[in-house]
Amino acid sequence: MNDNTRSLPHVVIIGAGFGGLATAQVLSNQAIRVTVIDKANHHLFQPLLYQVATAELTASEIAVPIRHVFKNAANVEVILETVKGIDAERQTVATESGMTIQYDFLVLATGARPSYFNHDGWENFAPGLKSIDDAHRIKNLILLAFERAEIETDPQRRRALLTFVIVGGGPTGVELAGAVAEISRKALVHEFRHIAPESSRIILVDAGPNILKGFDEKLSKRALKDLKSLGVEVMNGIRVKSIGPDSVDLDGNQISTTSVIWAAGVTASPAAEWLGIQADHSQRIPVDANMAVRGFEQIYAIGDTSNYVPAGSDTPLPGVAAVAKQQGKFLGRYILALVSGKPLPTFKYRDFGSMATIGRNKAVVRLLGWRLTGAFAWLLWGVVHIYFLIGFPRRFRVAFNWFWNYFTSQRSVRLIFSDSRTPPQNSP
Amino acid sequence: MNDNTRSLPHVVIIGAGFGGLATAQVLSNQAIRVTVIDKANHHLFQPLLYQVATAELTASEIAVPIRHVFKNAANVEVILETVKGIDAERQTVATESGMTIQYDFLVLATGARPSYFNHDGWENFAPGLKSIDDAHRIKNLILLAFERAEIETDPQRRRALLTFVIVGGGPTGVELAGAVAEISRKALVHEFRHIAPESSRIILVDAGPNILKGFDEKLSKRALKDLKSLGVEVMNGIRVKSIGPDSVDLDGNQISTTSVIWAAGVTASPAAEWLGIQADHSQRIPVDANMAVRGFEQIYAIGDTSNYVPAGSDTPLPGVAAVAKQQGKFLGRYILALVSGKPLPTFKYRDFGSMATIGRNKAVVRLLGWRLTGAFAWLLWGVVHIYFLIGFPRRFRVAFNWFWNYFTSQRSVRLIFSDSRTPPQNSP
Repeated sequence: MNDNTRSLPHVVIIGAGFGGLATAQVLSNQAIRVTVIDKANHHLFQPLLYQVATAELTASEIAVPIRHVFKNAANVEVILETVKGIDAERQTVATESGMTIQYDFLVLATGARPSYFNHDGWENFAPGLKSIDDAHRIKNLILLAFERAEIETDPQRRRALLTFVIVGGGPTGVELAGAVAEISRKALVHEFRHIAPESSRIILVDAGPNILKGFDEKLSKRALKDLKSLGVEVMNGIRVKSIGPDSVDLDGNQISTTSVIWAAGVTASPAAEWLGIQADHSQRIPVDANMAVRGFEQIYAIGDTSNYVPAGSDTPLPGVAAVAKQQGKFLGRYILALVSGKPLPTFKYRDFGSMATIGRNKAVVRLLGWRLTGAFAWLLWGVVHIYFLIGFPRRFRVAFNWFWNYFTSQRSVRLIFSDSRTPPQNSP
Repeated sequence: MNDNTRSLPHVVIIGAGFGGLATAQVLSNQAIRVTVIDKANHHLFQPLLYQVATAELTASEIAVPIRHVFKNAANVEVILETVKGIDAERQTVATESGMTIQYDFLVLATGARPSYFNHDGWENFAPGLKSIDDAHRIKNLILLAFERAEIETDPQRRRALLTFVIVGGGPTGVELAGAVAEISRKALVHEFRHIAPESSRIILVDAGPNILKGFDEKLSKRALKDLKSLGVEVMNGIRVKSIGPDSVDLDGNQISTTSVIWAAGVTASPAAEWLGIQADHSQRIPVDANMAVRGFEQIYAIGDTSNYVPAGSDTPLPGVAAVAKQQGKFLGRYILALVSGKPLPTFKYRDFGSMATIGRNKAVVRLLGWRLTGAFAWLLWGVVHIYFLIGFPRRFRVAFNWFWNYFTSQRSVRLIFSDSRTPPQNSP
């Protein structure tokens, strides 16, 4: 960076998820100074994170160092830091290590984290899935359950160790339940001497009447059928009353289990707190048609951090990757137009569809009006995800993995580390 | 396991490194009951661990779940457990979770861990490299140093962050120094805006007169030249006097650095303590010509756990993979012969050679009397290591990685996790 760039408008982007990354990419190599701040050093392809949690992929296959993405954009600076506050009057961002960063435009793209509906103690026993660390924690939890069951002599304790409860019937919950079923039914068979991993009980709990409520009823029914064919028990209309170290209370029904995974809800990161403003019930910040935060000059929010209600609608856009990406791209163009005095673009969300995979040859896809299921949907799911991984250095390895595992039913990333020497909090 | 097997001789193997794994593999599908106990769930290909620490490979590429190795050996049982003691009189092994395991033959193959020569505080500032967790810790340390330097405004602190000191001039130290040089000189170039990673100072310190003392002088000199061509400063005949959070004392010469890596010495795991016997200065257990521990019936020690002096020699065999493998294989055959009353084999170590890689097109190889250097040695090093990875599910991915990185000079595993949100102990 030379001194000339100091006089350029400075866009500070907090968070390099799908939204923040898209904004920074639009602003790359433009007459604008860009600073991307993230507490991780990598951009993460969240839709495949459940495959890291279930020993199918390694973290490096679905993550890319943020500064590597902007290697050839000399106007973009990347800072590994945790933000602790915003001074909207002085137009500065404060970080935990003591940096103060001045901005002309501020983009809040901090994403979401698991929400336990005011039962914060549940987090200790039922990890959610948002970061690579979360994925490793869940992987350790699943693999350690089988290891402990193998040496457990009490039949009831053994049964609890081989019972997996996944809370939340959205795409993440469905995909996790299907993957845990495939691990126990296929990958681990013949590897234990005292337990039969394939006899594991896998329960998917959802408070609503149907799983995959963002899909239509036909696809939801098909996903239910696919899950059942893998031996997953699906409980709809059931609420979790409590979660403890070795049991979960499902509407009064006590289930002994040491492995609960949380995929039930998310809440936005603390961006609203930084601004000291009223957010919605999920801590999302209401934004106007241009993603601007009401009442603040030059501050914008996108993706899971924002509550954006399209004109003529009364529900906000969902917290999915496509919304964040499109908002991020729009905001980059909007800021560019703003600083160069060109006509301003307008935002319109295009819903291309949604998809979830349940297991081998099993997926449900809603795409441009089509509804697809079974092996073809599963193949399409794979192709689309490889396509979206463009720019990830290990993309072809993901494809190779899927291809290989399709024929072997193996899971090649079954390593327990970090927690292997100290039991996790929800150990027996 | 059916009840018939209960009457078979029971071989308990503690540790599934090269030695223990080899013994168990010889005993697979024989009329013997085998139990393998390890505190990790995976066998690790140690010679490539430095590549996990330097963002070239992922852990899953050089590790394989132990129970996966013995999937088709119904007589082998694998237990994920930490051993806490041995009762030689009762012939039992006690584990931390409270198991008591009876043995007829006990094989101690617990390996080695870093030794800080009675300066245990140094471990906090200079991690060693033995486990996957160690490798991730070192990777975080290296990658975080560049990230912190990028936002550091004090020139002296920045210099300290960009100074890497590797202690120990054996193969691991040489390979780490070369890899850190390549990361800073090649992979990270153009990715930072305020620092020039290629200006990093990389120092390799060794107390002896030459690096790679297990090789001959010609190869040692060539390795020195190769390291210098990568910009590594090699300091021979220098002792480390102290290591602190932001400096290291090299024979009175204070060097400001926040990144020290320990590759200077190892000590055997606490197997000698379990037996309450006198070990050598590196805690290795003296064994006889059949790997039997003197004074104990039915207890054997192999690999880094043992001190084996061949007949006619006065120095013990070195702590390398080949020794552990050959001893492990021998011991399996020896026990088989013992229980079946067949003629007993005798052990003779065959030294095929040794090799170390310094960087792209740079390696030194001593193989069956040949001495090779440069690009051909480097290629041979790669072929030999891929060959030895037989049985690792992700072997071909390792080859693909090397091939790919050869042309791109990239490091595709540059993810910081686990420690990314909390600074490590040796942070500024």
